[in-house]
Amino acid sequence: MIRIGISGYGNLGRGVEAAVAAAQDMQLVAVFTRRDPESVNLCTAGVPVVSFDKIKEYKDKIDVIVNCGGSATDLPLTTPGIAEDFNVIDSFDTHARIPEHFANVDASALKGSKTAIISVGWDPGMFSVNRAYMNAILPDGADYTFWGRGVSQGHSDAIRRIPGVVDARQYTVPIDEAMQRVRSGEQPVLSTREKHRRECYVVAAPGADIASIENQIKTMPNYFADYDTTVTFISMEELKEKHCGIPHGGCVIRTGYTNGRKNAHTIEYSLKLDSNPEFTGSILCAYARAAYRLALRGDFGCKTVFDVAPALLLEQSPEYMRAHML
Amino acid sequence: MIRIGISGYGNLGRGVEAAVAAAQDMQLVAVFTRRDPESVNLCTAGVPVVSFDKIKEYKDKIDVIVNCGGSATDLPLTTPGIAEDFNVIDSFDTHARIPEHFANVDASALKGSKTAIISVGWDPGMFSVNRAYMNAILPDGADYTFWGRGVSQGHSDAIRRIPGVVDARQYTVPIDEAMQRVRSGEQPVLSTREKHRRECYVVAAPGADIASIENQIKTMPNYFADYDTTVTFISMEELKEKHCGIPHGGCVIRTGYTNGRKNAHTIEYSLKLDSNPEFTGSILCAYARAAYRLALRGDFGCKTVFDVAPALLLEQSPEYMRAHML
Repeated sequence: MIRIGISGYGNLGRGVEAAVAAAQDMQLVAVFTRRDPESVNLCTAGVPVVSFDKIKEYKDKIDVIVNCGGSATDLPLTTPGIAEDFNVIDSFDTHARIPEHFANVDASALKGSKTAIISVGWDPGMFSVNRAYMNAILPDGADYTFWGRGVSQGHSDAIRRIPGVVDARQYTVPIDEAMQRVRSGEQPVLSTREKHRRECYVVAAPGADIASIENQIKTMPNYFADYDTTVTFISMEELKEKHCGIPHGGCVIRTGYTNGRKNAHTIEYSLKLDSNPEFTGSILCAYARAAYRLALRGDFGCKTVFDVAPALLLEQSPEYMRAHML
Repeated sequence: MIRIGISGYGNLGRGVEAAVAAAQDMQLVAVFTRRDPESVNLCTAGVPVVSFDKIKEYKDKIDVIVNCGGSATDLPLTTPGIAEDFNVIDSFDTHARIPEHFANVDASALKGSKTAIISVGWDPGMFSVNRAYMNAILPDGADYTFWGRGVSQGHSDAIRRIPGVVDARQYTVPIDEAMQRVRSGEQPVLSTREKHRRECYVVAAPGADIASIENQIKTMPNYFADYDTTVTFISMEELKEKHCGIPHGGCVIRTGYTNGRKNAHTIEYSLKLDSNPEFTGSILCAYARAAYRLALRGDFGCKTVFDVAPALLLEQSPEYMRAHML
C-alpha cells in the first residue's frame, strides 16, 4: 500500500481524498491543515487531521504528500519546503513562474533524495501532456487551447470583491465559431475576445446599484475587459439551485501537416467534467503513484508530467496493460 | 544527428521518410528492402537503397531502424531478428500476439544491449496511450474506441480477392448515434453492428456477376458479415478520382465517475487524418527519437508506448517544454 498524506483540505484536497479512497493500492495516512485541526471533518473515517506545523513528524510514515495548497502564496513555499523530506505532488498553475518553482523544488528534492512532480492537473497537466504528444507528431502545426464551459473560481472571486455583491458565479465559455475554425485546419490568429466569452451570475445586496456593478464587472482589467461579458442578476435561491456545481472542461486542438504540407491532420483532446476538483484530484492521485514508483527506482528530483511514462500511473501491471490496453 | 534506417518501403516507409526529412535532429542513412534495390526510388536524394540481407553491415552506421514491414508475417520475424544489433521501432498491430512479440523482441534487444519499441502508431499507439491516461484518472469507468471514417487496407484487399473485382476501396464508418450514446455517459453495451458500418466502392470487370459480388462481400465472415455494409459499383475513373487518398481517424472516449459516482466525466481523444501512413510514420519517427535517448541512458530491452515519457519524443529541450507547453 502506498501511504498518502494530503496537505490542504479545500475542494481539491477532498477530491484527492475521494480518489485515494477509490484506489486499491493506496491508503490515506493523515491530512495536514493550517486551520485548527479540530475544525476539519474528513470524509474518510479514522484518519487524523494534523497541524501542518507537525508534518515532518510523519517523515517515515508517509510515502507521498499530495500538496493541495493554492498557487499564489502557498505552493511556492510549501512544496520546496517539504520536498526534502517527502515525495510530493502539487498542482502549481502559475505558468510564468513554473521554471522558478521547478528549480526550487528540484534542489530540495535532490538534497533529500526524494521525487517531486509539480504542475499536475488538467491544465497544466493532461492538456500539457497532449500538447507534447501533438507537437512531437506534428511539428509543422499550431495548437489551440479552449477552456469551458466551466466555473472559474478566480473570476467568481473577483466579482465577489465588488461592493454590493453578495455572491457570484462566473462561467468561461469557449466560442463555437472559433473552435470550428481551428478544427477546419485554417490555423487562425484569434484574439482573446474571439476565443472565449464570460457569463456572470450575480446576487446583489438589496438596494445595490445594479448598473454600477455590471459596469464594474465588464470593465475590470485582465479579468473581463478583453472579453464579451454578460451579467445576469439572480436571487440567492437561484444561485444555489442552478449554479452549485463546479463543472469545467475544455479542449486542446492541434492541426498540422505532413510531407511538405501535402496532407493535413487534426488531433483533439477534450474534457467534460462535472466536478473540476474531483477530476483534478484523481489526476494528482495517479501521479502520486508515479512519484512513489520513481522514488523506489531512485529517480529523484523534480519532474513534470512530461517526464512520467504513462505505465507509472496505473495500478495495473505492464503485462496487463500490454494485453488489454495496447 | 540521430542516424535513421528504414526497413520496408511501402506507404508507411514513405511516411517515415517524410517525417525524418522534416526533423531537424535526424538524418536518413539507408532504406532496406526485400525487393530489387534497383527498382526502388526514394524521395530523399543521395540515400542508398540496400538489400535487407545486408542490413547488419550497417550495425555501427545507424542509431535506430524503423521497421515498416507488415504485422502478419514480416514484423514477427524481422523485429526480433534485428533487435540484437539495432535499436528498433515497429508498428506491430496484431493485438492478440503482442505479448508473444514483446517477449521475443525483449530477449533479442537485451542480448545486444539495444532498445526496441513495438506497436507504435495510432492504434496501437496514441489510442493506447490515451486509454492508459484515461484509465489511470478514471478507474471507475468504461472506454470505447471508434475508427473512421477511413480506408481499411485489409478490408479493401479482401474485396479485391473476389473473382470479378478489378479494384475496391472500403471505408470504415463509425455510427454517430453510438458515439453520442457513449459521450452521454450511459456506458452502453454496443454490438459490432451498432458501432461501425462499412462502405464499399467496387470496380467490377466487364460482364462480372454484380449481384454475386455484392452478396459475397456482405456475407464475408469476420470482414463484413457482422456489419451493415453498403456496396456501390463505380468505374475505375471514379475510383481514381474520388477514392485515391488514404484518410483515416477515429476516437477513444472514456466516461467515468468520481467520489462514489457522485460526479461524471468524459474524456475524448480524436484524430482526423488526411493520410494514415504519413501520420503513422510521423509517430514512428518521434518514437525513434525516444528509442535513441533510452538507449543512450542504458535503458535496454523491449518497450511499448506505455513505457515512454512524453518528453523523450520531442526535439525541444525539457526547459523549453516547461516554459512553453506546460
